[in-house]
Amino acid sequence: MRVELLTVGDELLLGDTVNGNAAWLGRRLTDHGADVTRSVVVGDETDVIVAAVTSALERADAVITTGGLGPTYDDVTRDALAKAAGVALVRDAALERRLRERVARAGRELQPMALRMADVPEGARVLANSAGSAPGLRVELPGGTVYALPGVPFEMRTIMDEVVLPELAEIAGLPAVARRTLRTARLWESVVATRLAEVEAMDGVKLAYLPDPAEVKVRITVAGADAAGRLAGVEARVRELLGPAVYGVEDESLALVVHRLLAGRGETVAAAESLTGGLIGAELTRTPGSSATYGGGVVAYATDVKRRLLGVPGELLAAHGAVHPDVAAAMAAGVRDALGTTYGLAVTGVAGPDPQDGHPVGTVYIGLAGPQESRTVVGPRLPVPGNGPETRGVVRRMTVVHALELLRRRLLGLDAEDGNGEGRVDREDPG
Amino acid sequence: MRVELLTVGDELLLGDTVNGNAAWLGRRLTDHGADVTRSVVVGDETDVIVAAVTSALERADAVITTGGLGPTYDDVTRDALAKAAGVALVRDAALERRLRERVARAGRELQPMALRMADVPEGARVLANSAGSAPGLRVELPGGTVYALPGVPFEMRTIMDEVVLPELAEIAGLPAVARRTLRTARLWESVVATRLAEVEAMDGVKLAYLPDPAEVKVRITVAGADAAGRLAGVEARVRELLGPAVYGVEDESLALVVHRLLAGRGETVAAAESLTGGLIGAELTRTPGSSATYGGGVVAYATDVKRRLLGVPGELLAAHGAVHPDVAAAMAAGVRDALGTTYGLAVTGVAGPDPQDGHPVGTVYIGLAGPQESRTVVGPRLPVPGNGPETRGVVRRMTVVHALELLRRRLLGLDAEDGNGEGRVDREDPG
Repeated sequence: MRVELLTVGDELLLGDTVNGNAAWLGRRLTDHGADVTRSVVVGDETDVIVAAVTSALERADAVITTGGLGPTYDDVTRDALAKAAGVALVRDAALERRLRERVARAGRELQPMALRMADVPEGARVLANSAGSAPGLRVELPGGTVYALPGVPFEMRTIMDEVVLPELAEIAGLPAVARRTLRTARLWESVVATRLAEVEAMDGVKLAYLPDPAEVKVRITVAGADAAGRLAGVEARVRELLGPAVYGVEDESLALVVHRLLAGRGETVAAAESLTGGLIGAELTRTPGSSATYGGGVVAYATDVKRRLLGVPGELLAAHGAVHPDVAAAMAAGVRDALGTTYGLAVTGVAGPDPQDGHPVGTVYIGLAGPQESRTVVGPRLPVPGNGPETRGVVRRMTVVHALELLRRRLLGLDAEDGNGEGRVDREDPG
Repeated sequence: MRVELLTVGDELLLGDTVNGNAAWLGRRLTDHGADVTRSVVVGDETDVIVAAVTSALERADAVITTGGLGPTYDDVTRDALAKAAGVALVRDAALERRLRERVARAGRELQPMALRMADVPEGARVLANSAGSAPGLRVELPGGTVYALPGVPFEMRTIMDEVVLPELAEIAGLPAVARRTLRTARLWESVVATRLAEVEAMDGVKLAYLPDPAEVKVRITVAGADAAGRLAGVEARVRELLGPAVYGVEDESLALVVHRLLAGRGETVAAAESLTGGLIGAELTRTPGSSATYGGGVVAYATDVKRRLLGVPGELLAAHGAVHPDVAAAMAAGVRDALGTTYGLAVTGVAGPDPQDGHPVGTVYIGLAGPQESRTVVGPRLPVPGNGPETRGVVRRMTVVHALELLRRRLLGLDAEDGNGEGRVDREDPG
């Protein structure tokens, strides 16, 4: 089944909003065996939407649109679908009643334009929206089926999961492809690709590399007969070739994996953060239930805080400044002791855009303190590509990944080396 | 000048990557007066790219593509452009030399497939990439001009700013529209839209609302003669109607505004975070130079840390648990004193997915301690829409915005009320 996506909204063309809806839909549809062949964004103009839907149905079996179903006058997807189908918009009594009830329950007055959300193209099916006011619509056009969903991500996702996907799965049958994503940390993309050359050459196997700062996701796709069975063998070979850098699969974040490892041992961690300003803590607490393994932390942004709250010796700071391996080690031990956790993880360094105390941007030391000891194991320089407007964010993100990966390796009793074939983390050529 | 975007990459259709490139390009082009009329994503297939480029040039004056210029065999944009132009790919000697030099400088060996990046369609112009290996290309087709840029965001942006935008600006001339984005915090979108009804009705004025958790951006577009002059008047009226909820313009984040206000007064802040796990600190340190106003903080995720590091009285925690207004106030005073800052900002609450100590998801208390006093001014419940898989992230993000906005209002001597016409923050109907 070939599906095209049509995302409607001036704010997307203007770049005020990033198209997260298209990404989510692509992932969801692919996982359910549909083939997403194109994704188009157009503005809030009736005729442009009519043309885009019609042309998409010349290529695909179904089109899913998002956006343009709200109450305001720039919401014209409803009008466009009526026009494409050659029918009128009619007020749906049940929808109107539901809108009035929702507003009354909230003790507020109905804005007259909100009633636009009760208008549907004649003959269209209303797709219940259990998460909000704007309903979805299913419209049959000569070229195929159009599912129109609201643009509010949470509402779109709800209708998709509750209504659209079950319908599409019934029509499209089971997938003929099997997919698996393996997640690696600290390996360079070029090293991953070189190691996996033999897998890339396998018949019916496709690899995609999805790089993030300090992470590479490897998406394996196996097509053809017994795809799922063959995938297991391919995955095993990829794991063999990449070694311990593979930390998880699919949506498992590094923080989630660390959380599970700690929970399995009944251990806890605390973080002392300088350049990341709280990102390590934020990442560790993104997972529900993280309070079992994450005690908390200290954001020691000002140098003085490293001394006062973490007990980093004043002489050390006076002699070397805050960006030094011994400071990272002392911060790690300090936060472990202050919070009474099993481990202390600490980062200090230069996020940029300017050098600090003579250290270039990307200089980062990561300290890890265990029950008995404290040491610095990563440094001195992350493989930061250049120094541009994004560098600060990239350095901060890389620091989070390197710190969590260091803890993961420690929990698994693995070597702290990064596996890129050199003795230490170093600058990678961005090409 | 009408421009269409063509983003190439299976990873975008599959939803492994969110299309940040298209958003950035849309924003940049719009700001420079170009009209971005459509944005299309296709997979890594030569013929599909040829067809998409050709059809885009039937509608638009120029097409900008991103992706498919790298070294691997799924990078086929080069091949597609040669095919569309009816020419061969030829090896560019200068590009090959540059590639070899870059790799030699990094002390590594050239992977043979990297040389693909030195191939260009005959007659195409090479666009220098000062940030990486893959060059951009400018190809003239019968229907118009194609600019092909690499998919690595930093490289794409560099070539765009250094080469493509100056060329387009020369061709397209000055914009006939003027735009301004005002940023508001804590106002509901429906309240913003209702207050701005009279502006919406003005001739030649268009408003777009871009909602985020707890924030609404209002984008004003004025078209026609003297657009810039009229925009000033419209902006003044919008500010009048929205009042102090307008905290900034364009890319100014709430954290940046707070940073500037503090810097202007020579004051500092520290954060004590429970449910946000470090997000407030991470947000406050995203801005370069933030060490002047942000001292650091304590992530008091475990209840015991609130007592040990922040001095929250044990009796208070024993009597009420961690989710209580008095706890928020004590945390704020505690972090202010521990870090020696002018202000202490503290949050405690329930991010979800499960209720905690009988408090529903979205229960959040925010404490603010000034030089003399400490009090809780926001609570008890953020306007969280439902409880789904995203709720935890939304509650955390809302909490950050509410906390920073509270501090901003305090620094400006404004009322802490949210301006939604009720005495306290309460549940908003998600419609």
